[in-house]
Amino acid sequence: MTVLGLGPMGQALAGAFLASGHPTTVWNRSADKADALVAKGATRAATVADAVAASPLVIVCVIDYTAVRAIVDAAGDTLTGRTLVNLTADSPDRARELAAWAAERGVDYLDGTILTPAFTIGGPNAVLLYSGPEATYQAHRATLASLGGTATHLGADPGRAAAHDVALIDMYWTAVSGIVHGFALAGAEGIAAADLVPFAQGIAGLLTTTVATFAEQLSAGEYPGHTSNIQSAAAGMAHVIHAAEARGIDTTVLSAARAIAQQAIDAGQGKDSFSRLAQRLQPPTTA
Amino acid sequence: MTVLGLGPMGQALAGAFLASGHPTTVWNRSADKADALVAKGATRAATVADAVAASPLVIVCVIDYTAVRAIVDAAGDTLTGRTLVNLTADSPDRARELAAWAAERGVDYLDGTILTPAFTIGGPNAVLLYSGPEATYQAHRATLASLGGTATHLGADPGRAAAHDVALIDMYWTAVSGIVHGFALAGAEGIAAADLVPFAQGIAGLLTTTVATFAEQLSAGEYPGHTSNIQSAAAGMAHVIHAAEARGIDTTVLSAARAIAQQAIDAGQGKDSFSRLAQRLQPPTTA
Ligand SMILES: NC(=O)c1ccc[n+]([C@@H]2O[C@H](COP(=O)([O-])OP(=O)(O)OC[C@H]3O[C@@H](n4cnc5c(N)ncnc54)[C@H](OP(=O)(O)O)[C@@H]3O)[C@@H](O)[C@H]2O)c1
Ligand SMILES: NC(=O)c1ccc[n+]([C@@H]2O[C@H](COP(=O)([O-])OP(=O)(O)OC[C@H]3O[C@@H](n4cnc5c(N)ncnc54)[C@H](OP(=O)(O)O)[C@@H]3O)[C@@H](O)[C@H]2O)c1
Repeated sequence: MTVLGLGPMGQALAGAFLASGHPTTVWNRSADKADALVAKGATRAATVADAVAASPLVIVCVIDYTAVRAIVDAAGDTLTGRTLVNLTADSPDRARELAAWAAERGVDYLDGTILTPAFTIGGPNAVLLYSGPEATYQAHRATLASLGGTATHLGADPGRAAAHDVALIDMYWTAVSGIVHGFALAGAEGIAAADLVPFAQGIAGLLTTTVATFAEQLSAGEYPGHTSNIQSAAAGMAHVIHAAEARGIDTTVLSAARAIAQQAIDAGQGKDSFSRLAQRLQPPTTA
Repeated sequence: MTVLGLGPMGQALAGAFLASGHPTTVWNRSADKADALVAKGATRAATVADAVAASPLVIVCVIDYTAVRAIVDAAGDTLTGRTLVNLTADSPDRARELAAWAAERGVDYLDGTILTPAFTIGGPNAVLLYSGPEATYQAHRATLASLGGTATHLGADPGRAAAHDVALIDMYWTAVSGIVHGFALAGAEGIAAADLVPFAQGIAGLLTTTVATFAEQLSAGEYPGHTSNIQSAAAGMAHVIHAAEARGIDTTVLSAARAIAQQAIDAGQGKDSFSRLAQRLQPPTTA
């Protein structure tokens, strides 16, 4: 096994392979990030080409596909005839591009994405998605199982794992942007972050239900707003914006969200469920 | 008991009082919304003044404080000597203004906020916050317990429940705006909403941990980014923005969130935890 890229996630991946007893070769641009892994039995490679030459299965996990391309270009033709599993997050078109690049060079390619934090890797809570040729996935499935948790193969389209990832990363970072903003607003109102935690966790709990309800409404193409509607949501957002402005706190994120809700209200959909906005945001060709 | 305002939440509140055996008088601007409650034993009042005159404890729950003011102004002096519990969501300054208005007129006033959906009212999952004079809260605590779940009195400052509410509503609607956007992006990529649900619920589950971790970092005033940092988050947001633009989907919300992260990166905080942004968003006087 070779792991290229030893950020928090690459280190977790290499650590999980080592813990499962796989001989593991590692490489990172900044070589010192391999130190802890070497102490646990990993082999440090001096160059990408040396690292790739050490194993038939090569995992790459770095910050984005620009970095992936820099790394695979440095591999020269050593990747040919091997399998490259790219666990770096990026957008679906870039995953498809890299799959085409790999096909031209006789590299078997799987694109994957990791939906849970680095500390989950190797344990039961890790969630990984893969896409690319079924045969390639089946050939390495047992080895990849060392990463733990649940793994799902989403089919041959190499962009499909990344398509899931961008949609989920969208939900996550938008939500987390709201969490830091809410903590800032609470702090400005004299509420300690720790005091807000149980209530904020309650809000996170509600989102589980929101996701399921919205998906049902989207599948049905019906957006009944009898329990909560866009107009009421926009009023809530307006209160937050007002309160944040009163404390001199940036309101750009929620103002942008409110503008999208306002467009629906202006279009006469104010009494519909907020899920209506997912349908409105979709381009006409796919909606 | 009198309930003024019979949107989804007002109907749930009046329904819970009736279910607990409290004689309940109801009023709503659009009178027909009382029909179902009258069938369950509620008394319909023709005017706000009639409704207020029927009970020593008056609950108001409408869309915002502008609506509350229109309603209490219509009550004339019938509110004097009674207790008004305002369960309408709005901003802390408006809650404090309404408390001052009530004090001038000899109206006992509690401001409250409801953190859970209408369907939870009367059951174990309802979460309500109150603020205002301790004695007023204690006098009505047992009656208000008919609304179910857990109730917390946050102290005498009438704005404190609303301050919690805006911070939590901020987290909720920002997150929900991300959910509809993520469903739109997934849909544009050919992923059915239902197929995304288990993964999206996993994301919602992660937020529970995120909230606790960020609160610890904010309390400590330390923002260690060794497991995940602002720079990596900004890269993730950039992938989403790129993927959304490729599909012709609005990117204003996440672009605003990314700009805030970029400011931190430009300030040399890119390797810090994302929780650092809560500290950066706070105005200097309170940070
Ligand atoms: N951390 C998590 O909990 C988590 C969770 C889910 C998914 N992911 C995904 O996993 C991937 C890796 O994340 P991460 O947290 O481990 O780290 P990261 O901060 O996203 O990326 C850091 C890694 O990228 C390398 N890198 C950056 N630019 C490079 C370049 N031009 N050439 C070569 N290497 C370059 C770094 O090398 P240097 O050390 O030399 O700078 C380091 O190995 C990302 O796509 C991330 O979205 C992470
Ligand atoms: N629904 C929920 O699950 C939920 C959850 C937590 C908190 N809340 C909060 O509870 C409050 C009420 O929410 P809701 O969902 O029941 O309904 P809503 O859609 O927020 O408000 C509708 C109510 O406001 C009344 N109203 C609006 N403008 C008025 C005016 N100018 N004068 C008099 N009445 C006016 C409506 O009367 P008409 O019927 O005549 O239009 C109706 O009774 C809000 O502050 C909301 O944020 C609701």
